[in-house]
Formats: sequence, structure tokens, C-alpha cells
Amino acid sequence: METKQAALQSVIWATDHLDLLDQRLLPEEIVYLPLQTSEDVWEAIRHLKVRGAPAIGIAAAYGVFLGSRNSNDGVEQWLQAVKDTSDYLATSRPTAVNLFWALDRMKAKAEELTSSNINHSLEECKQFLLQEAIAIQSEDEETCRLIGVHALTLFEEDMGVLTHCNAGGLATAKYGTALAPFYLAQEQGMKLRVFADETRPVLQGARLTAFELHQAGVDVTLICDNMAGMVMSKGWIDAVIVGTDRVAANGDVANKIGTYSVAVLAKAHNIPFYVACPLSTIDLSTPSGDLIPIEERNAEEITEGFGKRTAPRGVKVFNPAFDVTPHDYVTAIITEKGIIRPPFDVNLKKLFEQ
Amino acid sequence: METKQAALQSVIWATDHLDLLDQRLLPEEIVYLPLQTSEDVWEAIRHLKVRGAPAIGIAAAYGVFLGSRNSNDGVEQWLQAVKDTSDYLATSRPTAVNLFWALDRMKAKAEELTSSNINHSLEECKQFLLQEAIAIQSEDEETCRLIGVHALTLFEEDMGVLTHCNAGGLATAKYGTALAPFYLAQEQGMKLRVFADETRPVLQGARLTAFELHQAGVDVTLICDNMAGMVMSKGWIDAVIVGTDRVAANGDVANKIGTYSVAVLAKAHNIPFYVACPLSTIDLSTPSGDLIPIEERNAEEITEGFGKRTAPRGVKVFNPAFDVTPHDYVTAIITEKGIIRPPFDVNLKKLFEQ
Repeated sequence: METKQAALQSVIWATDHLDLLDQRLLPEEIVYLPLQTSEDVWEAIRHLKVRGAPAIGIAAAYGVFLGSRNSNDGVEQWLQAVKDTSDYLATSRPTAVNLFWALDRMKAKAEELTSSNINHSLEECKQFLLQEAIAIQSEDEETCRLIGVHALTLFEEDMGVLTHCNAGGLATAKYGTALAPFYLAQEQGMKLRVFADETRPVLQGARLTAFELHQAGVDVTLICDNMAGMVMSKGWIDAVIVGTDRVAANGDVANKIGTYSVAVLAKAHNIPFYVACPLSTIDLSTPSGDLIPIEERNAEEITEGFGKRTAPRGVKVFNPAFDVTPHDYVTAIITEKGIIRPPFDVNLKKLFEQ
Repeated sequence: METKQAALQSVIWATDHLDLLDQRLLPEEIVYLPLQTSEDVWEAIRHLKVRGAPAIGIAAAYGVFLGSRNSNDGVEQWLQAVKDTSDYLATSRPTAVNLFWALDRMKAKAEELTSSNINHSLEECKQFLLQEAIAIQSEDEETCRLIGVHALTLFEEDMGVLTHCNAGGLATAKYGTALAPFYLAQEQGMKLRVFADETRPVLQGARLTAFELHQAGVDVTLICDNMAGMVMSKGWIDAVIVGTDRVAANGDVANKIGTYSVAVLAKAHNIPFYVACPLSTIDLSTPSGDLIPIEERNAEEITEGFGKRTAPRGVKVFNPAFDVTPHDYVTAIITEKGIIRPPFDVNLKKLFEQ
């Protein structure tokens, strides 16, 4: 496999169709699927060829354009085609919030373009709608880039940085959140030594993080989750950075299972623990982490995740998909607007009041 | 799969042959191989059908009997057959210390039986040699049982206890070391809730610990290694108990990779961390844990451990098989002679001076 000196993108608009990286085949094969229709996009989202909430939203936005571009009977009929396509794409996966957010934004744009105050031609409407999808992708990329810019101020040449799970470019337009500073460092010729937890049971760290960083030429070393403590004790880790699924108003952080263990280990070794996320992930309506519901997933992810049964049949299994890291363990939260430090309850509120 | 109310034994002497549990097939199949000859035993050791240093030693001892029982030309010829069989079995695996120890003990016994001072018949010699193999097995079982007796005094009804890797009956004659108190509790009708780390990369916790405890009817819940911290934070764990490969004179403990992380997490949650082992595992000639060499194993254990590639080709991997837990994290060491508490440098020395 050839090492490329650029981050791999999961969604690429290619003039007249969408090139989508089939994430199911990673890390063994890098295959871009050319998607020509909204049906292609629906199928890609449903069958997890694309994953990561921002990347799903971006793919869906392009899907709205693809599903309405052949409507040539007039602006009103086109607007209806946009709405129908959006409703159809919304059935692809029921729980991804960014999916609905992106579809709503595309519908609102189409309504704005066809409103009586503006006199766009049908062709103009189609082109402006495509521009909206491109904007959604660009804005996500810019958000991630800014997170990376701020995060990189915390790192120095030759530092060892541990990450857990995948908060990378594959889940977003580009750069990712926790992985953004690694890509920016790479662009700037600054060397960091990244350690990636493999992240059982689904192995996003091995399959995706190690893969995308290795592809981009970043110095990355894969370890099992249970090696994090030993690697810290050897003095190889100067900082930890992870993404998050939700930050509560007090700074408690929900993220992939295992994040809490990493945070406790970091504290025991006096290593700073950073969380990277866009503002949209901070949920001031949730006062604290104990109120965040933790999804439990099926036992088979653990007992036969490698395509081979590795545990006795009938054994009890506990498989929480996430855990909550109390804010006491969090050194700073890094957003596109800058670095937030404790007290988080005060400083997160201030951030949104600006 | 039927749940049996008895611990599964890896080596069973069956009147005239050895029944050996094929550990390669676990946890999917429980198959006992009937071994009739020393060649059968050699092949079983070489191809990892039996693993765990004490269990290998026991199997080899029976192998010496099997390989010499058809020598009917006289006592001298029989003694030679014992020596030849021992030399042959010693070539089955080069590094298992218990293998050589058991073979030496069998040879010494045969020499004693055939010495000029004693006048045993050939048939008597054979029977006494078989008794020696049975004694090796019984003594190991008794050592493990005593470890369990002492360990069980630390536990109370309905406690949650976490273990890592496999220090169980499958690796020993019966009971194991760290798992011994669970079997004794089961025998006594005392209920404990055991949590087993799956123990990446080789999954001894999932494949062996969860398997043997589940078989024995012990209440065991399998988790991924990275869930240990979360499970502790929920208040489900009252104690941790693990085995060890070597204890240094100062009480530092080398054990399967991930043990150190568990110890740090236990301390952060004020949970006692116990280590169970026979006296033979305590090495007073090693002053401290940093002098214990840590084996690094090949990357494929992590990247394609279960017949399926789960990480990018060419990525750097760090795969230490063991780590060292400094004695500050160890609450007590449990041996067949009793429970040793800090200061370990003083108290371990005392133990051997008794």
C-alpha cells in the first residue's frame, strides 16, 4: 500500500457525482464508490459505507442535489423533488442527528431559492443547491481545521500524543476533531509521535485512526487499549487528545468506551487530557454527564467481533458503547472558537454568550 | 452448551492413559484427547494443546510413565527408557521451566527406585513412577487450593471481583491461582460476581477465564479491557485479583500486559489489588521489577489475531506481552503459605526464611 502525503477524504464531490470512500472495506482496501443518484447515497448511508455523523450529513446533502437534478418540469416541481428526496434520504438511518440537520438545511435553501421574492432560473436553483452542499462540507472542514489550529498550540515538536477511537478525517469533511492537530502538524512539517488505542470492541482506532494517519504519513503506533498505562509509565506520552459525542454543561465528556480509563491513567501520570469538538457537540441543556444515556450494544461485538467466536456461548457480557469522563479529569476542551479551561460550567456558558 | 457444576481439568489421569483437554479448540469445543504414548504427549505440548507452565509439567510427568511402561527387559533397561523418554519430552518446548523441573523429578524418582539399596520389582518401579506423576499433579492442586483458601478470606458474599488474563484451572492441575478463590467460593455456595477482562491481544480472559468460570457455574461477566475503569466507577468492583509470572524481591509484579493499567485504575477507585501465586513464582534474586525483561511479541497478534486483518498493513505496532506493576499498587500477595502484606521487601524475605 502506497503511503500518500495527504489525508484521505471520505466524501469527494467530483464535478457531476459523489466519490465516496467505502469505509466497510478499510483498512484492507481503499475503494471510492461513484454515487450518481440519491438511491446510491441512501444505500451507502444505510449500509455504513459512510460513517461519522458529519460525513453522513455531507453525503446526504449531496444526495439531495443528485436526487433532484433531473427534475426539469419547472421550479415548483423541482422544489417538490428536493423535498421528496430529503424525506427519502431521512429514512436511510434513523438516529444520526447530522443527517436530519443537513437535509433540513438543503430543503430550507431550496425553499429560499424558489421563493417569490427571488427570480432564479431552474438551472440556477440547481447550481445554488449544489453550492449549499459544498458549503456544508467546507464549513465542516473549516470547523475541524480551526479546532486543529487551536489544539496544535498545546503541542510541541516530538511530543508523544495518545488518542482513543476515531475522531478523524474519515468521520468529517477533513481533518477530524481530535486528529486535526496531527494533520496540521504534518502540513507544517512538525513531527509528533501519535499512539492509537485500537479501541475494542469495534476497533475504530486500529481500523480507522491508525489507517488514516498512516495513509497521511503521520508517525503513528498502534497499541491495544490495555497497553496505554504501560506506555504512559515509560514516559512516551506527553498529552492525550480525544473527540466526544456530547459535552455536558459542567464539562463532563461522553465518548467511546475506554475514554474514562485513559483519562484516569493520564491523571495518574500527570499527563494533560484534552477533548476536541465543535461547539455543536456542547450541550448546555444537559447539566452533567450522569444524565447522558449510555447505549449498551449487543454481546456479539465482543464475543465474535473478529469473524470467529472468541468467548464461550451463553456467557454474560457487558458492552457499553460509551462512558462519561467527569470534568475533573479534563484539562481543556478545544473548539473552533478556542481553548476552554476550567471552571467549565462558567467558561462553557460564557462561550455561548459571546 | 451444558453448564457443569465442576471446574474443567486440563489433565486427567484415566487408569491407563492421559485425557488431555485440547485448549486450542476452546471456547468453541470441549474435546479430551486420549494420550497413550510419550509421542502423543510430546505432540500435545509442542502444538499447544496443553498450555500453562504447571499443566505442561504435569502432562510431561505422565508422558515419562507412558513412554517407559512397555520396557519389560529389566529394571536397568527400564531406567534407561525413563531417561530417554525424559530427554525426548524435553525437546517438545524449549522454554517452559516447569517442563524440565517435572522431567528431572521423574528421572530422580526412577533413579531412587532402581538404586541398589531398594529392591523393587520392575512392576513396582513402574507403579511408583506413576505415583510420582500423580503426586506432582496433586501437589500443584493442593498449592492452588491453599492459595484459594487464603484468598477467599479477603472476599465476602456478593462481592464483585475483577480479574485479568487467565490464572485459572486450565493452566494448573486444578483451581488455578487467581481463580482459585472463585472455585472455592462456588464449592462452598458463596456467591461472588466475577468480571473478566478479555485481555487483548490473545484474549485469554475471553477464551479461557470466562470459559472455565462459566463452565463451572461461577457468575462471570466478560468485558473489554477498556471497560474496567467504567465498571469500577459504577461501584461494581470490590477487589481485583490477578496471577503473576514473576514477583521481584521488593514486591513488584510482572504479569500479562494490561495488569498495570488495572492496578492504577484500582488505586484511583480505592479498590484493593491482590496478586495470587505459588512461592515458586517469587524470585528473591530479582531485586525489583525494572530488572524483569519484558518480551515483545509480533505485530500480527494485534493486527490479524483472529484470521482477519484489522489494522493497516505497514503500521507501527507496539506489542509488549507483559508489564510490571510497582509494589505500591499491590495491596497483598497471596501464596499457599498465607497472605503477604507490605513492606514486601521485608515480608517476602521473612517468608522464605521460615
